[in-house]
Amino acid sequence: MADRRILTGEKIVVEIGNLKIGTNHPPVYIAGPCSVESKEQIMETALTLKEIGVDILRGGVFKPRTSPYAFQGLGVEGLEYLKEAGEAAGLPIVTELMDEGHMDIVAEYADIIQIGSRNMFNYSLLKTIGSLNKPILLKRGMCATIEEWIMAAEYIAVHGNKNIILCERGIRGYDNYTRNTLDLAAVPIMKKETGLPIIVDPSHGTGIRELVEPMSKAALACGADGLMIEVHPNPPCALSDGHQSLTFEEYRQLRRNK
Amino acid sequence: MADRRILTGEKIVVEIGNLKIGTNHPPVYIAGPCSVESKEQIMETALTLKEIGVDILRGGVFKPRTSPYAFQGLGVEGLEYLKEAGEAAGLPIVTELMDEGHMDIVAEYADIIQIGSRNMFNYSLLKTIGSLNKPILLKRGMCATIEEWIMAAEYIAVHGNKNIILCERGIRGYDNYTRNTLDLAAVPIMKKETGLPIIVDPSHGTGIRELVEPMSKAALACGADGLMIEVHPNPPCALSDGHQSLTFEEYRQLRRNK
Amino acid sequence: MADRRILTGEKIVVEIGNLKIGTNHPPVYIAGPCSVESKEQIMETALTLKEIGVDILRGGVFKPRTSPYAFQGLGVEGLEYLKEAGEAAGLPIVTELMDEGHMDIVAEYADIIQIGSRNMFNYSLLKTIGSLNKPILLKRGMCATIEEWIMAAEYIAVHGNKNIILCERGIRGYDNYTRNTLDLAAVPIMKKETGLPIIVDPSHGTGIRELVEPMSKAALACGADGLMIEVHPNPPCALSDGHQSLTFEEYRQLRRNK
Amino acid sequence: MADRRILTGEKIVVEIGNLKIGTNHPPVYIAGPCSVESKEQIMETALTLKEIGVDILRGGVFKPRTSPYAFQGLGVEGLEYLKEAGEAAGLPIVTELMDEGHMDIVAEYADIIQIGSRNMFNYSLLKTIGSLNKPILLKRGMCATIEEWIMAAEYIAVHGNKNIILCERGIRGYDNYTRNTLDLAAVPIMKKETGLPIIVDPSHGTGIRELVEPMSKAALACGADGLMIEVHPNPPCALSDGHQSLTFEEYRQLRRNK
Repeated sequence: MADRRILTGEKIVVEIGNLKIGTNHPPVYIAGPCSVESKEQIMETALTLKEIGVDILRGGVFKPRTSPYAFQGLGVEGLEYLKEAGEAAGLPIVTELMDEGHMDIVAEYADIIQIGSRNMFNYSLLKTIGSLNKPILLKRGMCATIEEWIMAAEYIAVHGNKNIILCERGIRGYDNYTRNTLDLAAVPIMKKETGLPIIVDPSHGTGIRELVEPMSKAALACGADGLMIEVHPNPPCALSDGHQSLTFEEYRQLRRNK
Repeated sequence: MADRRILTGEKIVVEIGNLKIGTNHPPVYIAGPCSVESKEQIMETALTLKEIGVDILRGGVFKPRTSPYAFQGLGVEGLEYLKEAGEAAGLPIVTELMDEGHMDIVAEYADIIQIGSRNMFNYSLLKTIGSLNKPILLKRGMCATIEEWIMAAEYIAVHGNKNIILCERGIRGYDNYTRNTLDLAAVPIMKKETGLPIIVDPSHGTGIRELVEPMSKAALACGADGLMIEVHPNPPCALSDGHQSLTFEEYRQLRRNK
Repeated sequence: MADRRILTGEKIVVEIGNLKIGTNHPPVYIAGPCSVESKEQIMETALTLKEIGVDILRGGVFKPRTSPYAFQGLGVEGLEYLKEAGEAAGLPIVTELMDEGHMDIVAEYADIIQIGSRNMFNYSLLKTIGSLNKPILLKRGMCATIEEWIMAAEYIAVHGNKNIILCERGIRGYDNYTRNTLDLAAVPIMKKETGLPIIVDPSHGTGIRELVEPMSKAALACGADGLMIEVHPNPPCALSDGHQSLTFEEYRQLRRNK
Repeated sequence: MADRRILTGEKIVVEIGNLKIGTNHPPVYIAGPCSVESKEQIMETALTLKEIGVDILRGGVFKPRTSPYAFQGLGVEGLEYLKEAGEAAGLPIVTELMDEGHMDIVAEYADIIQIGSRNMFNYSLLKTIGSLNKPILLKRGMCATIEEWIMAAEYIAVHGNKNIILCERGIRGYDNYTRNTLDLAAVPIMKKETGLPIIVDPSHGTGIRELVEPMSKAALACGADGLMIEVHPNPPCALSDGHQSLTFEEYRQLRRNK
C-alpha cells in the first residue's frame, strides 16, 4: 500500500443538506431508474419513492453504454427533468458525470456527482472534480483492486474535495450467472482504510431482481452506510437495466423488511 | 443450466442427531481449528467452544496443502483426538476427507464428512461418498461456477445421498488484499437452485481475522443456514491459517454480537 | 515462492521409447479424440494420425464431466480399444487417470498417465502416482497459480517420479468468448522455474476450432516442447468437445503449415 | 454480439507516412521508454532505436498512474522533447492522450494518438477522437471483454475515424506472478472480428523483462501486425516500469532473433 494518504481512516461524514452519511448515522437510501427516460417517468418515480421513503433520487442522463448504438441518455434535457422531479418531491439528486465538458451544468443541477465504474480510472476527470465543492459518489472500477480504489479517492481528495461517498457495485468475475460479483468484504475494508462512507449497489452488483433484497440486508449487516437501488415504474419497458430494476411495490416491500 | 436434476429447489433439511440444518431452522455454528495439532489443543478447544456455544466441532486431520513440504495433518491419530474431544464436549464433529482410502475410517469417526475446495471437481470421490449414508459438507471449488457447484452436488445426490450441506468459502479473485472473494450472492442463489442448506466460511472467505465478524453478520443476513469459523487457542502459533483464526475471546465476542 | 524444491530449473528430458521430450528436442505432437467412443473410431483415428505424422495418441476413457448425466467415457473397455489402436499404429498412448482405483490398469496400458485439470489439486492422487515409474502429463488446474502448479509437480517429484510433462491448457477468465484464457507466458515461466518439458493444449485452451492453428504456432514460438490437439473423424458427432476438435484434414493442414 | 457494426471484419490497413500497418504488411516495431523523462533521455533513445531498427517511437508524457503521488509525466514539455527526438531520428511518434483538454496539442505533435488501458471505457474521449483525422492506438481495457473492446473501437469508428490500431496489453488475472495475463488468442480473434490491425505489448502484458522476447515471438507467430516494447537507456533508473523495460542491447538482441 502506498504510504502517503489524505484518507487515513479517520471517519468522514458527508452532508447533503440535513442528511448525514457515514459511520454512526442511519443508512441512506438512494433509489431511482437507471436512466431518466421522460419527464413523466422520473416525476412519477420521484413522488412515489418519496412516499415510500427515500433520501436521494438517482437517475442517469449521460449513459456510458458498451455499444455506441444503445440508448445514450437524454443528456441536458434529462438533467432538467431530474432536477424538477427532485424539487417536486423534495429529494436531493445524484447523477453520473462522464466528461469535463458537462461538469459545470451537472455541478449546478446535481446535489451529488456520480463517477461511474468505467471512469474510476479516468484520472483527468478525478482531478477536475477534486476541485469542486460538491459531494462525489465514487463507484468502484469493474476490476479495481482495493488499492486502486483507495488511490482513485486520493486523486479526488488531494485536489481538495474530501466529500466522497464510495460505492461497491460488484466486480468482474468468471461466472456469468450474476452480472458481477458483489464484493461485500470491501465494505468493512474500505471503511477502515479510508474512513469514508460506503454504500452498496446490489442492482448492478448482481444484475438479478430477486437478489437485490437479500444482498441489501447483507450489505447493511456488514456496515454499509446506505444502499443505491434501481427502481422503475415498469421494469420490462425500461430503456436500460430493466431486469435488475425493482417495481415500486418490490421496493416498498424491501423497505418494510428492513 | 443442465435440466436433469435431483436437487430441484425443494427444501432439504439435514439432521445430525437432534440438530436440524436448513431453511426455517436456527443457524448452525461450526467452529474449531484449521488443523488438529495435538490431543491437548483439540480437547481444550472443544470444551471451550462448547461452553461459548457451538453446535459442531471442526478440525482438519488430512490437510490439502499447496506445498508437499508443509504440515500435512496428523492423519488417523488426529482423527482419534478429534473424536475424543467431540465426545468429551458432547459435540458432533466434521473433518475433511481427501481420498477414498480413508473413507471408511473417516465415515466411522466423523458425523459430517467435508469435501474441501480442492476436491469439489474430484468426481471419483464425489461418486464414492454419494453411496454413504452420512451428511456431506460440500465446499465450493475455488473457481467453481454456480453451475459446476450444483453439478458437484448432483454427483453426490445421484448416487443416493441427499444429506448435503453446501459451504461458500470464497472464490479466487484478482485482488490479493483478501485471500479469496467471499461471494455471498451464492447464498440465496444456491438455496433457490438446490434447496440445500448452505453455510458460509468467512475465515477462508477473507483470510483476515478482522473481517470474520462483519462477514458472518452479512452471511446470516442474506439467508445462510450457518457459519463455519476457524478458532484456535493461540492463533500466532497455529500450524496452518493462524492469521485468519479467531481466539476464544474473539469468537465469544462474535457470538455475543449476533 | 516456497524455497525447497526438487524441480530446481535444471533441464529434465522425458523419454517414451525413443521419443525425447524437452528442451533442445523437436516438438512432440500428441493428437486424438477427446473421448474414445468406439473401437472403429479410435482405430481409424490412430492410423490416420500416424500417416499424417503424430508422435503420441491421446484418448479419454475416464471422463471428468461437469454433469453426472453427461457421457462419462467407456472406461476399461475404452482403454483396451485405445491400446489396440496405439499398437496397430505403432504409437504410444496417453490417457487420463481420475482415481487410484484405476491406477494399476491405466499404468499397465498407457505409456503416459494424464492428470487432468480438475485433479491438479487432488494431492492424494498426485502422491500415489509419484511412486510410479511412468511418465506423467500434468495439466494445469483451471485456476492454478504458477506457484500452485509448481507445487503440484513437486508433490509428484517428491515421491520419486520426475518424469513429468507439464501441459498449459488455458485458465479460467472473465470473458466467455473463448472457453479458457490460454496463458502462453506460462511456457517460458514454467520451463525456467522447473526445468520440466511443457506442452500446450490449444483445443481446451481456446475451445474454438479456428484458433487451434494460430495458437499452436504461438505456443511453439515461445518455446513449448509440444502440442496436444483434439482431432476427431467427425467433430459434429463427437460425444464431447466436438466444437474444438479438428478434422483429419484440418490437422493435416496444421502440420503442413508448421 | 451486437449486430450493428462499421468494423465488419473487412481488412483495414493504417498508414503513417509510407508505413503500412495491417494484414499482409511486415510487422511494425514500436519502441521507447514508458515515460519521457528528459530531453537527453528521449533523444538518445530515439537515435539508438533508429539505428537498431524501429519504425515508430513511443514515449509517455501524460501518465495515468495509480497513485496521485507518483510521477505524472512531463506534460507538454515532454511532448516537445518527444517531437524533437522523433524528428531528429526520422521516426513518427505515438503518445497517450488522457483528456480532451490536451487533444489539440497531442494531435498536432503526435503521429498516432494512444488511448491507454484505463481509458478504453472513457466513451466521451473515444467519441471525441473519433472525429479526428489521425491514427488511434486503442489499448485493451485491463478487464475488457472481446465484445467491449470491439465496441470501444466502434465508438471511434462511428464518429468517422477508422484508422485504428488495436493493442493487446494483457488482462487482469488471479495470479500476480506476472503483472497481467497476456491474452494472445485475442490477436486472431480481433483481426477476424474487426479487420483492424492489432499489435501486442509484451512489456505491460507480462511486466517481466525476460518474458518480452518469447512473448514477442509468440505474438508474431499468431498473426500480430506489430510489437510495442518498452526500451530505456537505463532501466533500473527509469521513473516508471523499469523492471519490464529492455536495455538497448536487449532490444537489439530481440530484433536479431526475429
